[in-house]
Amino acid sequence: MEYRELDINSVVPYLKSVDKVMDYFGSDDLKADEIGDGNLNYVYLVSSMHDEKKALIVKQAVPYLRCVGEEFALGRERMTYEIRALSKFKNIVPELVPELYHVSEDMSIVVMQYLGKHIILRGGLTDAKRYPKFSEHISTYLAQTLFKTSSLFLDSTAKRKLIDEFNSNTELCKLTEDFVFTFAYMQNETNDAQNVKDNPQAQKLFGDMKFKEKVLDLKYKFMTSTDALIHGDLHTGSIMLNENETFVIDPEFAFVGPFGFDIGALVANIVNNYVHHTIVTKDEGFKEYLLETIKEILELFESKFLKLWEAQKDSALLIEGYIDDKTAKHYKKKFLKRILQESVGFAGCKMARRVFGVAGVAEIRGIEDKKMRREAEELVLKIAREFVMKYNNINSNDEILEIIKSAR
Amino acid sequence: MEYRELDINSVVPYLKSVDKVMDYFGSDDLKADEIGDGNLNYVYLVSSMHDEKKALIVKQAVPYLRCVGEEFALGRERMTYEIRALSKFKNIVPELVPELYHVSEDMSIVVMQYLGKHIILRGGLTDAKRYPKFSEHISTYLAQTLFKTSSLFLDSTAKRKLIDEFNSNTELCKLTEDFVFTFAYMQNETNDAQNVKDNPQAQKLFGDMKFKEKVLDLKYKFMTSTDALIHGDLHTGSIMLNENETFVIDPEFAFVGPFGFDIGALVANIVNNYVHHTIVTKDEGFKEYLLETIKEILELFESKFLKLWEAQKDSALLIEGYIDDKTAKHYKKKFLKRILQESVGFAGCKMARRVFGVAGVAEIRGIEDKKMRREAEELVLKIAREFVMKYNNINSNDEILEIIKSAR
Repeated sequence: MEYRELDINSVVPYLKSVDKVMDYFGSDDLKADEIGDGNLNYVYLVSSMHDEKKALIVKQAVPYLRCVGEEFALGRERMTYEIRALSKFKNIVPELVPELYHVSEDMSIVVMQYLGKHIILRGGLTDAKRYPKFSEHISTYLAQTLFKTSSLFLDSTAKRKLIDEFNSNTELCKLTEDFVFTFAYMQNETNDAQNVKDNPQAQKLFGDMKFKEKVLDLKYKFMTSTDALIHGDLHTGSIMLNENETFVIDPEFAFVGPFGFDIGALVANIVNNYVHHTIVTKDEGFKEYLLETIKEILELFESKFLKLWEAQKDSALLIEGYIDDKTAKHYKKKFLKRILQESVGFAGCKMARRVFGVAGVAEIRGIEDKKMRREAEELVLKIAREFVMKYNNINSNDEILEIIKSAR
Repeated sequence: MEYRELDINSVVPYLKSVDKVMDYFGSDDLKADEIGDGNLNYVYLVSSMHDEKKALIVKQAVPYLRCVGEEFALGRERMTYEIRALSKFKNIVPELVPELYHVSEDMSIVVMQYLGKHIILRGGLTDAKRYPKFSEHISTYLAQTLFKTSSLFLDSTAKRKLIDEFNSNTELCKLTEDFVFTFAYMQNETNDAQNVKDNPQAQKLFGDMKFKEKVLDLKYKFMTSTDALIHGDLHTGSIMLNENETFVIDPEFAFVGPFGFDIGALVANIVNNYVHHTIVTKDEGFKEYLLETIKEILELFESKFLKLWEAQKDSALLIEGYIDDKTAKHYKKKFLKRILQESVGFAGCKMARRVFGVAGVAEIRGIEDKKMRREAEELVLKIAREFVMKYNNINSNDEILEIIKSAR
């Protein structure tokens, strides 16, 4: 099918040609509302006129940045990678990825489950809401998706095929290279100019060569490690959940990259939230909950990943009979520690880039009181710097918590 | 053009349709001789009946392993990657890659310069021949090909495109994963069974878990690092040379892999030759020359690579204004040391795998006296083990030479 841009009027007629969608609704009396608040794509909520509970989300990419307009070209191929990643992840952890009703790479479109009873994790955490099953769910997501797309599970041929499927997600990989690892630490027109101007913190960061040299190591790792298929943008805005369910959405940045990047993104965003509560709400109980959450996620990730590995006899990396059990155990422990360390390094970059870079996070950039905002930024940068400077020597989850707690 | 297997009779008629080849010969009175002594492909020498000096090499891949026969299937796509790599490398270092007269991925064929006045480096070194320009030439080859296909030179998009072009060289990557990093260190049917049997050295190697755990690290690096386009099989049999010229041939194992692999392969094969002379000829002068050659290659590689890097303002990794000159200098030195270390690690694997693995090298496996051969193998394994166990802590070229010299 040839690509055409849908709008509020043409989206319902388009859906009527998709059997699985019509089976779901059981009626063709449908209405569409545009609900997109995203930067990149058009998003419609299509619902039944007879039964309000029946609703699906339609997401279509256009060949430009939606929030800016047609003059900012951005290939709609990003949806190709989102579709591929959603499909892969859905196969691996079906309970943690929204139901897919229709995908078309030609049309750059995906039709999926409407998460009407779920909220975005970032907002929930900012409102000091607790999610008792979140650590359990997200650690499963990380362990399963990372392990099962790695050379520790796949054979050599399957792994190269996977790299092929995502290797041309060039534009979005470049966005990360530029915005997470480069521009946010130097004078650049894409930065938050108002905040950079006359801000001694910005001058300090931009001149911090020791920090920036370490960031370069992490950038190089990001660009040249093909560990596993990663989500690529796993912040707390890419997670929707409630008391019982957790869904990971928006994997358009997916590619075969370093193990630690998704874990680091998640940790970074929880720490940003921790900083928000430190400065704004001063809710010690919730801060403790956030630290516990980080620790739980990291511990559960490690044990689940190791368990999957124990169960895997042959893979591209290891075959039965190559090493004895004791050595394998030692190797795996060391391997997991390396993942932890790199996660901490990436977490530092993901935090630091939010302070002066192009896309801030609501918890920090949204603080209206300027003095408090500066305090929060200072604390974010302090923790981020520790993460980046020390990641290679981190030995335990407790050391990570200690860095966070002792920063202020 | 559809693929068809050429033979001694059809190769000349095929060439007559290629203008550039006919321009070279200037006459259509040609004859063909099969000269292939390789394992994989058919190789013909096509020469003019009027002018014996005019000759070209025709190399065609067949969809099986030539040396075994049609029952051992091996995709002829390997020639696709050889063609792509020859073309890339020819662009980068034209004086170090044979002239290409015709390539066709469809026909899995390449027609190239006949190197009639050059010999294979392995044979030359075994005969204790010295090549005064070799270090200069091969260090240029390594520095230029590795730098100019890396993220230190290319932009992000060009780098991903390069990965794409070689990422499906699956079968040959898998051969390396299996034969260089796995099977040669365990009981496996592909090993040199006669040598493994009742050989305490083999039992020692197969049971050396500390060594094998380190090999696993290097295997993982081989499988998941996309530093640069590497030759992938740069032993002394892939180099043809004389006093004045050096040519690198046979890059069918090429893919975007770790920086240190080609350097390591080269060092490994020179050290194997050093071991040969230690045990067989006892030619101390030539041994010294080999050590000097290793040192020169490593020193020249580093200085040439750094010089190319200094001249490069922007790349996927670094852009102007990101860090100051002093920090950049420090970062680059550290980066080069890391390349050196990984080269030593890979050299260790490349040496060790030649002892009991499927493809031995003439200098060692060809030693007829069994006692001497065992001595040579023991020495190879001793140096290889040191390389693999210590590579992460190597700080200078002298430390590498010291390991080689002090092994006996």
